[in-house]
Amino acid sequence: MIQLTEMGQNAKKAAQQLAQLSTIQKNQVLKTMAASVRTNTPKILAANDMDMKNAQQNGVKKVMLDRLKLDQSRVDSMADGLEHVADLADPIGEVVKGWTTETGLAISQVRVPLGVIGMIYEARPNVTVDAAGLTFKAGSAVILRGGKEALQSNQALVAALREALITESVAEDSIQLITDTSHETATALMQLTEYLDVLIPRGSAKFIQMVVQKAKVPVIETGSGNCHVYVDEGADLKMATDIIVNAKTQRPSVCNAMEKLVVNQKVADQLLPMVAKALQPFNVDLRGDERAKEILPNITLATEADWGTEYNDYIMAIKIVDNLDQAIAHINHYNTKHSEAIVTNNYAHSERFTKEIDAAVVYVNASTRFTDGFEFGFGAEIGISTQKLHARGPMGLNEITSTKYVIRGNGQVRK
Amino acid sequence: MIQLTEMGQNAKKAAQQLAQLSTIQKNQVLKTMAASVRTNTPKILAANDMDMKNAQQNGVKKVMLDRLKLDQSRVDSMADGLEHVADLADPIGEVVKGWTTETGLAISQVRVPLGVIGMIYEARPNVTVDAAGLTFKAGSAVILRGGKEALQSNQALVAALREALITESVAEDSIQLITDTSHETATALMQLTEYLDVLIPRGSAKFIQMVVQKAKVPVIETGSGNCHVYVDEGADLKMATDIIVNAKTQRPSVCNAMEKLVVNQKVADQLLPMVAKALQPFNVDLRGDERAKEILPNITLATEADWGTEYNDYIMAIKIVDNLDQAIAHINHYNTKHSEAIVTNNYAHSERFTKEIDAAVVYVNASTRFTDGFEFGFGAEIGISTQKLHARGPMGLNEITSTKYVIRGNGQVRK
Repeated sequence: MIQLTEMGQNAKKAAQQLAQLSTIQKNQVLKTMAASVRTNTPKILAANDMDMKNAQQNGVKKVMLDRLKLDQSRVDSMADGLEHVADLADPIGEVVKGWTTETGLAISQVRVPLGVIGMIYEARPNVTVDAAGLTFKAGSAVILRGGKEALQSNQALVAALREALITESVAEDSIQLITDTSHETATALMQLTEYLDVLIPRGSAKFIQMVVQKAKVPVIETGSGNCHVYVDEGADLKMATDIIVNAKTQRPSVCNAMEKLVVNQKVADQLLPMVAKALQPFNVDLRGDERAKEILPNITLATEADWGTEYNDYIMAIKIVDNLDQAIAHINHYNTKHSEAIVTNNYAHSERFTKEIDAAVVYVNASTRFTDGFEFGFGAEIGISTQKLHARGPMGLNEITSTKYVIRGNGQVRK
Repeated sequence: MIQLTEMGQNAKKAAQQLAQLSTIQKNQVLKTMAASVRTNTPKILAANDMDMKNAQQNGVKKVMLDRLKLDQSRVDSMADGLEHVADLADPIGEVVKGWTTETGLAISQVRVPLGVIGMIYEARPNVTVDAAGLTFKAGSAVILRGGKEALQSNQALVAALREALITESVAEDSIQLITDTSHETATALMQLTEYLDVLIPRGSAKFIQMVVQKAKVPVIETGSGNCHVYVDEGADLKMATDIIVNAKTQRPSVCNAMEKLVVNQKVADQLLPMVAKALQPFNVDLRGDERAKEILPNITLATEADWGTEYNDYIMAIKIVDNLDQAIAHINHYNTKHSEAIVTNNYAHSERFTKEIDAAVVYVNASTRFTDGFEFGFGAEIGISTQKLHARGPMGLNEITSTKYVIRGNGQVRK
């Protein structure tokens, strides 16, 4: 606990220096960080080896081991990532709005750093470097708390990053790693209201919910995605099939992948066999309600639990509805407010769907897979917010900043 | 508890209807609300009488009684307020940003309602009507939880507002009041994550901190203000005196009033007697550090506790510093991130102050009293945010909305 308070104080001090750096200075530091990660690759890989051995001994699952594993190419892409962040436009100093009041006060709303950002995340060590690079460019100090499986790797990575900070005479405590991976320390971090301006959790839906429940620091929830595609009557069924195959199978493990197909009963007879055939090469486990099972007799009958589940896998459940009203009601009831799509050729239906569906991103005639900071053109992504405060949808550099009002006068007093 | 869950469900249902109302419909409802408040004035005043009698019997302090008391003119201004909100521009539907990606996806970031807003506040019954009017215009349902002293008044006011909703065939549960004023129910409201999109507390600094500590729902902290005016060397001392008198005495009970004077030692000898004289008619209790007391021997010696205290009263403490660095360090250490001013004629100093001071609003040569939604031209104010997430500074209608991304395509899939 005492250690955390000290880390918080040091981060706050570092943040004050960071906020004053010019874009040129910050980009130089990011490039030095990249170089330092490259130079320290042998140390980083050796540390990762230790993590891998411990994880194997502790019986960590293969899918987790894959996420934990670093090699030359993965370390290279971390360094590339830092160089890429250097190339991005600096959000700090942007005048978001500005106007002059009747008495001549010139008011500017200026983009400023958040201050100190906490990141709490599970296994993948690349989050350490990604998060450190983005928060640094956004002018904030960061306190990182990764999973215990990746502790050695994270320590080696953060050591490389801090080496670069020292080289560039920038406060070393701009980037700090919590090495005590106990639950008590994690909880204390979530409640470090005096020092943290925001906490961003990254990991499973369960993990994020745990953070939301325990945190006293403001949290930006990043998202689980139980995403739907609704195929309307009169839709282009070839287009619908292409979108479904893409949204379901292009990368099923991520949050913007489609999990549920909702179909208007008027097109179900024709669409479902097309979809089933197109998904066959991907070996997708299809489930459906009774009406869907009448059309595709070989699929499993979906249970109530299916409608709310984010599979993150080659599984898809199909719901047949009578009309748009039912589709909207079903989606708003079961979705996680992430990404939802309608395939339609009906103007009024497209308008109703985009207005009435409650989600961070609502699509007409496109795959849900585009919900992504890079696809949006932000050049970076620190997560996808599924909450409605501060940021909603993909979060790039702008979304991890704050603003302040600067008011220039010539002696104005209030009447 | 069960009651709260039901209220949450009803609010969510109402919010869906609210989100689809046109501006014309919402404005019509607001005008009907105003008429209903006027028609129900006798009932409202009778209810307030009961609250006043109870409060007097329970020995509630005079300053609290003043806040609780309603009369014809105070009820009239609540109704006027609702009509004024009807006249404000509707934030919903604004396209905040929009662009087209390389593959032809047309992305719009559109302003949408937050959904369900919780308001938790202390005695003043006018907050009930203000908050209900603003959240309604912003398209969100509201669950209100006022102080127990104002329960009868709040019930009469909410009954009048709901009467208007019924007249206009809008979901009555757009505006709900929690009538169980127990602490347990307040805590349950703060943790109603399934139904509340945000919780806005209004009241004393202590009250708001209690809410921040207990809430699991995202909170927008509205602000306590330990505001400083720093008078730089070379400043126009007449201007400085005018600003100090205004910032300190124009309305000392509010959060944007000045609490502390920080003075560069080069101008202290000349400035302090001017300030003391100008404040004399207001009977301000002056306190100061040792150097200030050398110049103004009659003032009280300030204690460490003074520097961090928001007096909200005719009290001001004076700190003398050697230079701008010390001024910035002192202010950043003790301020509550609300409103801070420099009086200077030095360009470089004005730039450093606005960049380095960490506060929602930073002034050059103007009174801190302008930190206000009306003075900013927002036409309304639901509070002043001193946190860095979502909204910082005065919050008008825009600040109680969210956004969603709407993406229109023609069959795009991700490569």
